Amino acid sequence: MERLHFLYNFLDLAGTFVFAISGAAAAKQRGLDLFGICAIAFMVACGGGIIRDLCIGAIPPAGLTNWHYLVAAIIATGMTIGLYPLVQRLNQPVIFFDALGLSLFAVTGAQKSLAYGHNAEVAVLLGITTAVGGGVLRDILLNRVPAILEKEIYASAALIGALIVVLGDHLKWLSSDWNSIIALIICFSLRLLALRYHWNLPVYSNEKTEQN
Amino acid sequence: MERLHFLYNFLDLAGTFVFAISGAAAAKQRGLDLFGICAIAFMVACGGGIIRDLCIGAIPPAGLTNWHYLVAAIIATGMTIGLYPLVQRLNQPVIFFDALGLSLFAVTGAQKSLAYGHNAEVAVLLGITTAVGGGVLRDILLNRVPAILEKEIYASAALIGALIVVLGDHLKWLSSDWNSIIALIICFSLRLLALRYHWNLPVYSNEKTEQN
Amino acid sequence: MERLHFLYNFLDLAGTFVFAISGAAAAKQRGLDLFGICAIAFMVACGGGIIRDLCIGAIPPAGLTNWHYLVAAIIATGMTIGLYPLVQRLNQPVIFFDALGLSLFAVTGAQKSLAYGHNAEVAVLLGITTAVGGGVLRDILLNRVPAILEKEIYASAALIGALIVVLGDHLKWLSSDWNSIIALIICFSLRLLALRYHWNLPVYSNEKTEQN
Repeated sequence: MERLHFLYNFLDLAGTFVFAISGAAAAKQRGLDLFGICAIAFMVACGGGIIRDLCIGAIPPAGLTNWHYLVAAIIATGMTIGLYPLVQRLNQPVIFFDALGLSLFAVTGAQKSLAYGHNAEVAVLLGITTAVGGGVLRDILLNRVPAILEKEIYASAALIGALIVVLGDHLKWLSSDWNSIIALIICFSLRLLALRYHWNLPVYSNEKTEQN
Repeated sequence: MERLHFLYNFLDLAGTFVFAISGAAAAKQRGLDLFGICAIAFMVACGGGIIRDLCIGAIPPAGLTNWHYLVAAIIATGMTIGLYPLVQRLNQPVIFFDALGLSLFAVTGAQKSLAYGHNAEVAVLLGITTAVGGGVLRDILLNRVPAILEKEIYASAALIGALIVVLGDHLKWLSSDWNSIIALIICFSLRLLALRYHWNLPVYSNEKTEQN
Repeated sequence: MERLHFLYNFLDLAGTFVFAISGAAAAKQRGLDLFGICAIAFMVACGGGIIRDLCIGAIPPAGLTNWHYLVAAIIATGMTIGLYPLVQRLNQPVIFFDALGLSLFAVTGAQKSLAYGHNAEVAVLLGITTAVGGGVLRDILLNRVPAILEKEIYASAALIGALIVVLGDHLKWLSSDWNSIIALIICFSLRLLALRYHWNLPVYSNEKTEQN
């Protein structure tokens, strides 16, 4: 329990940090001011988790009450502004950090929902929400159709990650820790492979189509 | 009580299903992928109800915890993709299903708020929210000004429907069931008549205008 | 306590009213219909507060349950439509009312969060949210990048106002009333000065930049 708790906290903070960097980079590229960059970074980092916490009744949301998250977002903003060449040198940093944050948040989101005693469906849906909620908020605020609805397997990877957490919790084949790590690795690999090989879910044109 | 409960559940599920079809059709026309279509369908179907449940303290929101809703959304997605010619043959299906879902949700939204012991104002406002919330979320996600703020009497029809539910609850002239059915029919007729005869609320140009 | 309560209620209603006017004016300029104008006015006026109330667990949100707010929003809508020449004569009314509402809401938002027993971070973040939440919702609904992320010191002024409330609460140098008034005046002056002299937060171009 102690170890799970530590792992959970660590994954959550790491996810916050990488999501904040991806948010800050997107906001900086868009030419927002210092506060705007910081706000988008915080929103991408904590937005999904805040929606999850409102839905599971964890009031006030951890993203608002725990200063670790705010500090992680501020440091990420400072790093993105001050060390931008470094952030840039990691080829396509936004996409890479985004994939890592996606996996981390899908797993921790599903876990927290289960820990609050909610059922498997809530855990899966809120795992996905935690993972993609911040990015959707970012795209809404930057006034574009959320990328997750159009691009390579993204939310679907979060779905897989959250499903593995919930299945592992029901079947109890492995300890929670190992189950989380496996869910994390599968979700992250799936996302990177989808990016590498341009895997996409089917799109339906407006002509007549058969049942898929 | 038993009968009301059954009616309430039935209306709620039917509303979910028709809203999901309207959402899936809009997302398909926009060229989103399979997950995107399913996500928009679920969002239109359950988004308004989830906002309502957060506001009345029904945690976790029924849209997340009750698998009926998710299944209804998935079936609606499958039908829209697989039987699109059928969905299309119903002339202007999106608009028709939208009007039906609007009426169903305004009524059930107001009822649920009253059932949780909140006052008449909360019931009316959340009736409207349940009815138009999903559509507003859809339009925000598809990056356009929500249609309900511009087009023929729409949210106003939901307002009338929710008002009738609240008035019926206070005056007790009829049983709850009959009151709901009347509210439903009036709201639905109002919306269809507005569509047929292009009834619009007044728009105020930027010149000097007198008090309306 | 009694006096603080009265001051708190008065500031909250005044803020609601001026925000509703700014919302109604923006919606009218955009050519929305009567319901659309009223909905945007209500959303700008109560949106930030509703998000705050969901986050601090004040269910149902005051914006929905207290008819004062709804009436204030409706009167503001009527005034904006009926007495538009008057509203217009106040040079740049939207911007002026917006600055007043911003200051009022940052202060009352931070105060309410503290009154519900939450910590300083929650109070500051939700003070900002109360202040800018409505305007962000307005810009999302009218389909543009929220102005607060780009323009002259705006959310930063709310941050200062909320910080002063929280600091005053911890240090107890002054009575709560005086502390609120000082926070209000500083936030409002800061915003007006920023508008007058075009103070902006730094924007980072996409070239290499040093740590700020």
